[in-house]
Amino acid sequence: MEFTLDATCGNARATTIKTYHSTIKTPVFMPVGTAASVKALDTRDLIDLLDTHIILANTYHLYLRPGDEIVKEFGGLHGFTKYNRSFLTDSGGFQAFSLSDISKANDEGIEFQSHIDGSRHFFTPQKVLDIQYNLGSDIMMILDDLIALPATKERLKLSVVRTTKWAKASITYHKKMQERGIGRTQNIFAIIQGGVDPAFRRQSAQELTALDFDGFAIGGLSVGEESQAMYDTVAWTTQFMPANKPRYLMGVGTPEDIVEAIDRGIDMFDCVMPTRNARNGTIFTTFGRLNIKAARFKKDHRPIDENCSCYTCQNYSRGYLNHLFRAKELTYYRLASIHNLHYYLQLTKDAREAIIQGDYATFKKDFYARRSQ
Amino acid sequence: MEFTLDATCGNARATTIKTYHSTIKTPVFMPVGTAASVKALDTRDLIDLLDTHIILANTYHLYLRPGDEIVKEFGGLHGFTKYNRSFLTDSGGFQAFSLSDISKANDEGIEFQSHIDGSRHFFTPQKVLDIQYNLGSDIMMILDDLIALPATKERLKLSVVRTTKWAKASITYHKKMQERGIGRTQNIFAIIQGGVDPAFRRQSAQELTALDFDGFAIGGLSVGEESQAMYDTVAWTTQFMPANKPRYLMGVGTPEDIVEAIDRGIDMFDCVMPTRNARNGTIFTTFGRLNIKAARFKKDHRPIDENCSCYTCQNYSRGYLNHLFRAKELTYYRLASIHNLHYYLQLTKDAREAIIQGDYATFKKDFYARRSQ
Repeated sequence: MEFTLDATCGNARATTIKTYHSTIKTPVFMPVGTAASVKALDTRDLIDLLDTHIILANTYHLYLRPGDEIVKEFGGLHGFTKYNRSFLTDSGGFQAFSLSDISKANDEGIEFQSHIDGSRHFFTPQKVLDIQYNLGSDIMMILDDLIALPATKERLKLSVVRTTKWAKASITYHKKMQERGIGRTQNIFAIIQGGVDPAFRRQSAQELTALDFDGFAIGGLSVGEESQAMYDTVAWTTQFMPANKPRYLMGVGTPEDIVEAIDRGIDMFDCVMPTRNARNGTIFTTFGRLNIKAARFKKDHRPIDENCSCYTCQNYSRGYLNHLFRAKELTYYRLASIHNLHYYLQLTKDAREAIIQGDYATFKKDFYARRSQ
Repeated sequence: MEFTLDATCGNARATTIKTYHSTIKTPVFMPVGTAASVKALDTRDLIDLLDTHIILANTYHLYLRPGDEIVKEFGGLHGFTKYNRSFLTDSGGFQAFSLSDISKANDEGIEFQSHIDGSRHFFTPQKVLDIQYNLGSDIMMILDDLIALPATKERLKLSVVRTTKWAKASITYHKKMQERGIGRTQNIFAIIQGGVDPAFRRQSAQELTALDFDGFAIGGLSVGEESQAMYDTVAWTTQFMPANKPRYLMGVGTPEDIVEAIDRGIDMFDCVMPTRNARNGTIFTTFGRLNIKAARFKKDHRPIDENCSCYTCQNYSRGYLNHLFRAKELTYYRLASIHNLHYYLQLTKDAREAIIQGDYATFKKDFYARRSQ
């Protein structure tokens, strides 16, 4: 991975990340393609209509179905999906923790039952990398010890200690595997834990950034805490993260969250919000959210957002989308997902431009001003 | 509507139909866009990826939701969907008959309850044309008296008599409306009834073709009767249909049915089979049907059909589609629907070529030979 810091504006950064498969300009939003498919879209949509340069896929889901060995058969995620740009895969720990009825972490890893067939599995730091070698992702996330918030001080401490222990095991294993010729074009990111506790966040950040990872993520946020607590934790944590490596805020978030986190030094984001909300009828625009189901859109000839250049806004009216949503037409899901993803991608693109122009403050002010009209 | 008989080969015909919105080369298969959307596809898919020149929409569904008045607000179906080629709309009678819990026909029309909200409605020959004027379709179907098969001789007779009565009312009303400037670019087709009874079919065909319709359909088939009975009824009925007007076999059918019906003089087809079967995992190919869910496709790198030039086959493997289907990914529905529709469209295109070349018999022989390999 090549990393360039292109510009800064306050704590906000514009960077360029070059993986084996693509060049990624940050800040960047990564659409979530859980089961090797961004829901309702196909690969050509992601390239031709949205010009994404990196998407996310979920290790837990692909390990269970179709199985990482099968994905490997096709030449990894790139060959399987025909998406020839970059993939980031998570470790699977979060889903093992959140989707499984029975999930137990110990010092060695996380035991869980498949949400599909109830079969039992055990994720260790090494195991989740083995899976990701098969998936062939450009950026692999290591196993971290997740906890539900609020947590006791003891559990929080254990999470930080265990996450560091697993990070060491991960980097050692990855170096060894790369020496054997496995995962040579794949990069590895560690995940800083510590809840909203400044001391634990600092400890986790310092311990992990001392290790030779290609980038660092902030995990364990956007799990129900107040927005301000999240913003403060991000601002606090980024100061302990190296300037010469990518910074990724996992699972975040609303457009407001993204604008605020960029201001606090984050480069990379992923979230199911644009696609999931699209399917539920919530559409993002420069002037705020709208519910496409609303009766007032029935006769509305205008596109969702008259300033939007997305495929959906260039072709279809609010009235038609309102009808498709009400009639539960499958077509709706794709058109709404394209619009919402375009909105998120454009937001981070515009943020980058503002950073390069050296006026992120005005960008942020305009962002809020348009939404309050 | 301009109609040209381009070539014949036995009873098979290649024709050209020019509507206000497009030029349609027949034999033609019309994808079904029930609620102003071909399920899982958008308008650009229908034009750019499938190059369809006519699609079908259902009057019953659009009358109930969003309402034909709303579609009219957008400039009819063309403005609403942005599909700027031809639409054929059915009369709504079939759905009033089949989707409603309570549906009663009398000499004036069909009374039914909405399957959406239980509201009561009454379709008359005039009413279904009024709805279709609002929809702005290029070809409107008139109300016919449908019956469930098997039916008594008395009921069958009543159906034929009533269908003729309604046809007369329809043509009278349409001429009057056109004089008033309504529906001037819209064409009107009558529907021949009579079950599988030769005498009733002849009577219905003779009575209807004596009226000044733009084209004629054969209705009331593909409702559970034996294939051979359908083929025989089509062969029998087409001899009473004028050579200088389009012939449409409603709701048919399998690829085999289409090949056989073309051989018996049919020009136009519609059926939900390609899209519905796609969603259920049944894929049509030149070598027969395949179930994409089958375990043997899990590691299959090949496209669905190596000879297929469709978007899906050009981009994706059986293995990836197998995975998307099993994971119930929305993306699957669009990709499979594109392939199946492409198959049907290509089949009728190839049939046309064979008719023009004057060797439909060889085309038919090859069609069956490939499927039995």
